[in-house]
Amino acid sequence: MDEVATISGQVTELAYALDTFYFLVTGALVMWMAAGFTMLESGLVRAKNTAEILTKNVGLYSIACIMYMLCGYTIMYPPDVGSGVFSSLATIGGGLLTSSDHTVEEVIASGGDVYYSGLSDFFFQVVFVATAMSIVSGAVAERMKLWSFFLFSAVLTGFIYPVQGFWKWGGGFLDQLGFLDFAGSGVVHLCGAAAALAGVLLLGPRKGKYGPDGQINAIPGANLPLAALGTLILWLGWFGFNGGSELIVSNVGEANSVALVFVNTNTAAAGGLIAALLLARLWFGKADLTMALNGALAGLVAITAEPLTPEPLQATLIGAVGGLIVVAAIVMIDKLKIDDPVGAISVHGVVGMWGLLAVAFTNNDGDFWGQLGTQAIGLVTIFAWVFFTSLVVWFGIKKIMGIRVSEEEEYEGVDLSECGLEAYPEFSAAE
Amino acid sequence: MDEVATISGQVTELAYALDTFYFLVTGALVMWMAAGFTMLESGLVRAKNTAEILTKNVGLYSIACIMYMLCGYTIMYPPDVGSGVFSSLATIGGGLLTSSDHTVEEVIASGGDVYYSGLSDFFFQVVFVATAMSIVSGAVAERMKLWSFFLFSAVLTGFIYPVQGFWKWGGGFLDQLGFLDFAGSGVVHLCGAAAALAGVLLLGPRKGKYGPDGQINAIPGANLPLAALGTLILWLGWFGFNGGSELIVSNVGEANSVALVFVNTNTAAAGGLIAALLLARLWFGKADLTMALNGALAGLVAITAEPLTPEPLQATLIGAVGGLIVVAAIVMIDKLKIDDPVGAISVHGVVGMWGLLAVAFTNNDGDFWGQLGTQAIGLVTIFAWVFFTSLVVWFGIKKIMGIRVSEEEEYEGVDLSECGLEAYPEFSAAE
Amino acid sequence: MDEVATISGQVTELAYALDTFYFLVTGALVMWMAAGFTMLESGLVRAKNTAEILTKNVGLYSIACIMYMLCGYTIMYPPDVGSGVFSSLATIGGGLLTSSDHTVEEVIASGGDVYYSGLSDFFFQVVFVATAMSIVSGAVAERMKLWSFFLFSAVLTGFIYPVQGFWKWGGGFLDQLGFLDFAGSGVVHLCGAAAALAGVLLLGPRKGKYGPDGQINAIPGANLPLAALGTLILWLGWFGFNGGSELIVSNVGEANSVALVFVNTNTAAAGGLIAALLLARLWFGKADLTMALNGALAGLVAITAEPLTPEPLQATLIGAVGGLIVVAAIVMIDKLKIDDPVGAISVHGVVGMWGLLAVAFTNNDGDFWGQLGTQAIGLVTIFAWVFFTSLVVWFGIKKIMGIRVSEEEEYEGVDLSECGLEAYPEFSAAE
Repeated sequence: MDEVATISGQVTELAYALDTFYFLVTGALVMWMAAGFTMLESGLVRAKNTAEILTKNVGLYSIACIMYMLCGYTIMYPPDVGSGVFSSLATIGGGLLTSSDHTVEEVIASGGDVYYSGLSDFFFQVVFVATAMSIVSGAVAERMKLWSFFLFSAVLTGFIYPVQGFWKWGGGFLDQLGFLDFAGSGVVHLCGAAAALAGVLLLGPRKGKYGPDGQINAIPGANLPLAALGTLILWLGWFGFNGGSELIVSNVGEANSVALVFVNTNTAAAGGLIAALLLARLWFGKADLTMALNGALAGLVAITAEPLTPEPLQATLIGAVGGLIVVAAIVMIDKLKIDDPVGAISVHGVVGMWGLLAVAFTNNDGDFWGQLGTQAIGLVTIFAWVFFTSLVVWFGIKKIMGIRVSEEEEYEGVDLSECGLEAYPEFSAAE
Repeated sequence: MDEVATISGQVTELAYALDTFYFLVTGALVMWMAAGFTMLESGLVRAKNTAEILTKNVGLYSIACIMYMLCGYTIMYPPDVGSGVFSSLATIGGGLLTSSDHTVEEVIASGGDVYYSGLSDFFFQVVFVATAMSIVSGAVAERMKLWSFFLFSAVLTGFIYPVQGFWKWGGGFLDQLGFLDFAGSGVVHLCGAAAALAGVLLLGPRKGKYGPDGQINAIPGANLPLAALGTLILWLGWFGFNGGSELIVSNVGEANSVALVFVNTNTAAAGGLIAALLLARLWFGKADLTMALNGALAGLVAITAEPLTPEPLQATLIGAVGGLIVVAAIVMIDKLKIDDPVGAISVHGVVGMWGLLAVAFTNNDGDFWGQLGTQAIGLVTIFAWVFFTSLVVWFGIKKIMGIRVSEEEEYEGVDLSECGLEAYPEFSAAE
Repeated sequence: MDEVATISGQVTELAYALDTFYFLVTGALVMWMAAGFTMLESGLVRAKNTAEILTKNVGLYSIACIMYMLCGYTIMYPPDVGSGVFSSLATIGGGLLTSSDHTVEEVIASGGDVYYSGLSDFFFQVVFVATAMSIVSGAVAERMKLWSFFLFSAVLTGFIYPVQGFWKWGGGFLDQLGFLDFAGSGVVHLCGAAAALAGVLLLGPRKGKYGPDGQINAIPGANLPLAALGTLILWLGWFGFNGGSELIVSNVGEANSVALVFVNTNTAAAGGLIAALLLARLWFGKADLTMALNGALAGLVAITAEPLTPEPLQATLIGAVGGLIVVAAIVMIDKLKIDDPVGAISVHGVVGMWGLLAVAFTNNDGDFWGQLGTQAIGLVTIFAWVFFTSLVVWFGIKKIMGIRVSEEEEYEGVDLSECGLEAYPEFSAAE
């Protein structure tokens, strides 16, 4: 029987290793989304503001990683809250000043409750908070001061995001209410969009975006191949984002679940892209590439709240509705003179709300309206918390150091004033 | 003994989980190839046609995903055909209107026949059909109507591809004949190239490509870093394409096989690149980057029909021959006034044929000529089926809605007429 | 008991499969670093030299793969040296003329000593040597002859790199001395930088870089989004580079180790980026994007020598010091009129040295100065070997075929003279 116990222990260790490796691979895919946002945003701004948006993206990712390590993770998964895997991970994570992790004895004694490395959990979580912050940079592009943005990044990733993350994923009151948000249509995407909206409202539109007679001027992005590349990077990264959020893969049922999440994530994006492209064609008369790209992202955001329950055809429809919504939302938000150069508030905010509410169709235990209400509570809670705290923080930064570059700097482009260099010094601008 | 049975079940489940995860990771790499084709093609067309080729690429990927879900997968793997893993997967896959998958009991009872999630199989298959369709978009670039292209995409991915896919991978007559095509030099690459050729023949060359006095004018691509990036993305994705096609990794022999496939895939690409670069240097006097990139892709296509049997040095040679062939084929096809802006027909078609025939050198059971004949039968069958059905479909689309943009639209660039925007609005063209 | 033995064998096989798959996935991520260097370097050179640097990057990767297969791997891991897993892998690897790999019997009989595919080891190793060579291409950009560079690539990857690789990773004298270099701050990064320095010294600076009156002229890169993309690709690939260097993942302790390596690699890069960005802001008055990117890479290089021992906060600091060093080193090396267009010697050489020495802080068995001395011996040995052999080889190539293009070719750009095409033919240069 000793031999059997040895083998049993080996099997437990092997499952732990597989789940940890799965977590690290999917986490690396989510980290890759940082490149997706960087390319998407740098493709959608004008050439003269490109170096600065690149700097913002790589900077915010780094700030997110450090702030979440220093305090965010502990706020979101506090050691004394929750039970089972969460509390022990949080103990490990406390400030991440230690590199200790689960021992073999702990793993085997847990009877399956401890099934992956605590550090792999931290890695997976830290790239999520960076994703939320990446959403903000696009919306405030082309006119915000670089260092004000970085200061806000530190507050969002170290405090605002973790608090609402705790409410749902840390076992807080939204989780206990029955609010469902599998991989973060709310916790990540709506969070980022709410913070962005607060910033954009205080910041005001770019010069020349809205004319004196009420006309809306399109300001086309300088490099659409980069925008397409960014979208495809995000699409790939989303397999990690949603696929890793199952948190376990090591048995038949869980492996099937992860596979279904991959299939649904992919098909929701496809549905969103096609729907947005068709709607743009019908509405504007042209197959607008940027709408198609935003449609794919909308499909991805929409399915993120629940990629595991829908059948693939349902997932396609959930994504497609997201694609329709995003086109309408971009037009509407522009009419409201809320200037969001990349459509981030529409994609992640408006469609994030759709994703949260759509969960009630597929996961309602027979009580559609009840679940819809719960989803609405979560939605409003996340939005209200992030929007108002962000507004306060943005307002404070505005008072202290300002948030908007000078008119002349905006005209010349923020690349020169903020970064001291140009993104494309040899390619002459066709003004 | 109960404990032993429990552990035995856990081991079976763990193997299922590992094989499913391997399938999902390699499938995600194949999905990434969509970004590779998108970057490659957008780098090799002129600036004025770039937004449209981006739109085509993201659109065709989405169409492929949806059409293959709706009918393609069921055609290729019909429930009542084949046996063992194939038939049960097909049952699951039927129209993909269900998200059910293998149960634990089914997996354990199968004694190893059912060893991965059916949905992971669908995910892996669906990204393959998108690859085949991606090949077409490059060849018809810069002059084809967007929506005609999308209509054709739906037919190829929902019907033409799955039928010949069934003949080989669904257990159809080519499989029964002994035709070998490990990961799809024929089923995927030759298929895409044959459909492209049919389209190009009906479409005709770009304006200005062939002069009135028979001269051939080079039309250089606008953004070679994107072409290089696309090639490297495809190179990476091909580890998934070939490496995942082993379908299993969970024991010593299979893990070794997957490793060998990775090594051979890499070295064949390296061989193709070097051979094409050297030939271009000798022939044209310059180290032509685009030839080098096509050489790498040719090496990859060449090894795809059989990456498991050759030793690494043989794989390098098979790839190198592919690299030589592709340079000659590009020159030849240009001389025939078949205008293929990115060389897709040469890379995927001509070299795909070489890959299929080269199998006879390494896998012939002592009967080289017999296997060569079987490979030729498969080659001709796939080419004939795809070419003629595609010709009919292209012809029908041409009659109904036309396939070519107007001369003026072509002159102005299809970006403005089809998509209503420019890819690089600020970078002035050096006409 | 037969059943128990069967299951035990299955578990051993499954662990072997997981470790092999882990090796292949991390190896694929390292291969992806080739795309990172390609994008980084093509973004940091001028438009007129872009096609050539792309050609160099894809060419050197291919040459590295073939040369390392033909002789490099056998030199680095000779069959008759070392013991356990190394010697048997080397036997398999000998010239890689065989595709045979470990048998099931061998694996089970080894009692855990043979735990992954020999071919997966080769795959992992071959992408490392390509990384080392990639470092060189950036430093010698914009003025070196293409084919002279390729000739040097063959010698470095087939001989110079493997010899010093053997000294450490093949079980040679540096390993026996106790010199520590987990994933290659020395063996890979310092090696590449030393070879680059030798080349740059013989080659001289670019025309116009240093004025007659001693002034230093900045020559900005043409496409900073590509540079940012390249950096993010390298960041992602480094999870494979460092994460795969643990060589095993299949039990609780090892899975935890791999997770810690991922966390530390990520946070060191973040620390390096922030530190470099802040220093550039304080020193130059601007948030210099290229310094930030080099800071991230410096953080990665710095942690590569020992990503497993530090706690995450320590790793952040090690990376941050790397970020400070790289800014100073770039300025200093420029003052010495050593013209390194992308900062490769600073990032990989100077910071590689920091990484090697920093190991003494975290891994010293109570003898800090002793370990520091050992690290210094390894550092000097690697630098001296690679620098002087490279100098001899570069010198020989200079005598035989020259290493520098003509003044006119340099003025016109090496794209036209070497590759016969332009990277951006339509985007007019703003001279």
